[in-house]
Amino acid sequence: MTVWLVGAGPGDPDLLTVKAARLIAEADVVVHDALVGDGVLALVPPGVELIDVGKRPGQVVAQDFTNQLLVDLGRAGKRVVRLKGGDPFVFGRGGEEALALLEAGVPFEIVPGISSSTAAPLAAGVPVTHRGVAAAYTVVTGHRREGEHDVDWRSLANVGGTIVILMGVSQRGLIAGELIAGGLDPQTPVAAIRSATTHRQTVVRCVLSELAATPIESPAVIVIGPVASLDLTPLQSYDS
Amino acid sequence: MTVWLVGAGPGDPDLLTVKAARLIAEADVVVHDALVGDGVLALVPPGVELIDVGKRPGQVVAQDFTNQLLVDLGRAGKRVVRLKGGDPFVFGRGGEEALALLEAGVPFEIVPGISSSTAAPLAAGVPVTHRGVAAAYTVVTGHRREGEHDVDWRSLANVGGTIVILMGVSQRGLIAGELIAGGLDPQTPVAAIRSATTHRQTVVRCVLSELAATPIESPAVIVIGPVASLDLTPLQSYDS
Repeated sequence: MTVWLVGAGPGDPDLLTVKAARLIAEADVVVHDALVGDGVLALVPPGVELIDVGKRPGQVVAQDFTNQLLVDLGRAGKRVVRLKGGDPFVFGRGGEEALALLEAGVPFEIVPGISSSTAAPLAAGVPVTHRGVAAAYTVVTGHRREGEHDVDWRSLANVGGTIVILMGVSQRGLIAGELIAGGLDPQTPVAAIRSATTHRQTVVRCVLSELAATPIESPAVIVIGPVASLDLTPLQSYDS
Repeated sequence: MTVWLVGAGPGDPDLLTVKAARLIAEADVVVHDALVGDGVLALVPPGVELIDVGKRPGQVVAQDFTNQLLVDLGRAGKRVVRLKGGDPFVFGRGGEEALALLEAGVPFEIVPGISSSTAAPLAAGVPVTHRGVAAAYTVVTGHRREGEHDVDWRSLANVGGTIVILMGVSQRGLIAGELIAGGLDPQTPVAAIRSATTHRQTVVRCVLSELAATPIESPAVIVIGPVASLDLTPLQSYDS
């Protein structure tokens, strides 16, 4: 075993899994992206090589570079921890890295993490499901590339569950327009959570028709649905 | 602070959060349901009161009973850890317990966990999102009660993302029928994962048109979509 693709969770290092914390403590090399929380990176022991692959321009080249880096480090017999914000298989491109390692014959394991798609709403006191209110939730990326498979927002408007949008701040006006055109009530509550589970956490609330005009800084998790009007947050304590 | 509503993750105690493991070690009372893994319960220190609220018949009465129990234990000043399988806000009815504690004025905190909705597919080598294949996933319960708000399965069939069904084994024929009637390809791959992340884990694969006739034991997580044909699992190691 040489490479672990590890979910680093939403930000708070206390929300790492026991397994992730142990793997970080025992790593030779930690490869991370921009979404991994500072508090998590602070747990990497001194002397461990820390490689940031989150800031390279040109996404496609960057992913090929990262895939090859993991293969090379794995072949060198290092204990490689590839830390990914949230969960490796929730918009983490963990599937592509796993495929590259499989094809190269490098042994690896995938360790799940808490996705900000549910942890960010929770930290704002918003349950993505709630009895009698939401019996489903959809997690969707607002980020689009040329030629990418897209979701049908108008169908999504009719599913009847909560909608959680990741990486959707810049497209929020277009998305809100599609959802309203699909039949979603313009008065549907919205909550946008930034820097969830850290001391910098902020929550902005509005209704769907106001989403385009409401100032929200990227990156943020946007929750759309009746649950977004709930605020079940008596107290929070985060360590980062 | 007296009551913590804590996600216990998908089963493997190594997939508890660092925070959940610490809270369990420091608890006076642990209140748990049937979905919490045996390996997790084994971490509860000797001498700590362990209350199982998962086996009472009559769901509605049971939830009222649990709500009141948490309020009473909290008022008694105990350090109460309410362990819930997966995440408290993903079909965990954590919202109802949080509301009961809020109304009673009992201080509490909610701690997220890894939901089996993503961890079970991951453990079977199935990424719920994958570049060029799925840019969204919907998590939905197949369990229905009289008068409950329902999802529109035919709209869901047209969203274009992965569908993850929890508690849907007994309704899988009806659900598959609705999805196919809504336009989803009968040849869409399906994976059903039982006892995910434990040594008892089993994975059954079929296509959507065969789902009704495929033997699947409850409870299981059912994943429907092109990603369900992937199997990115070179090696797994679970401690429970």
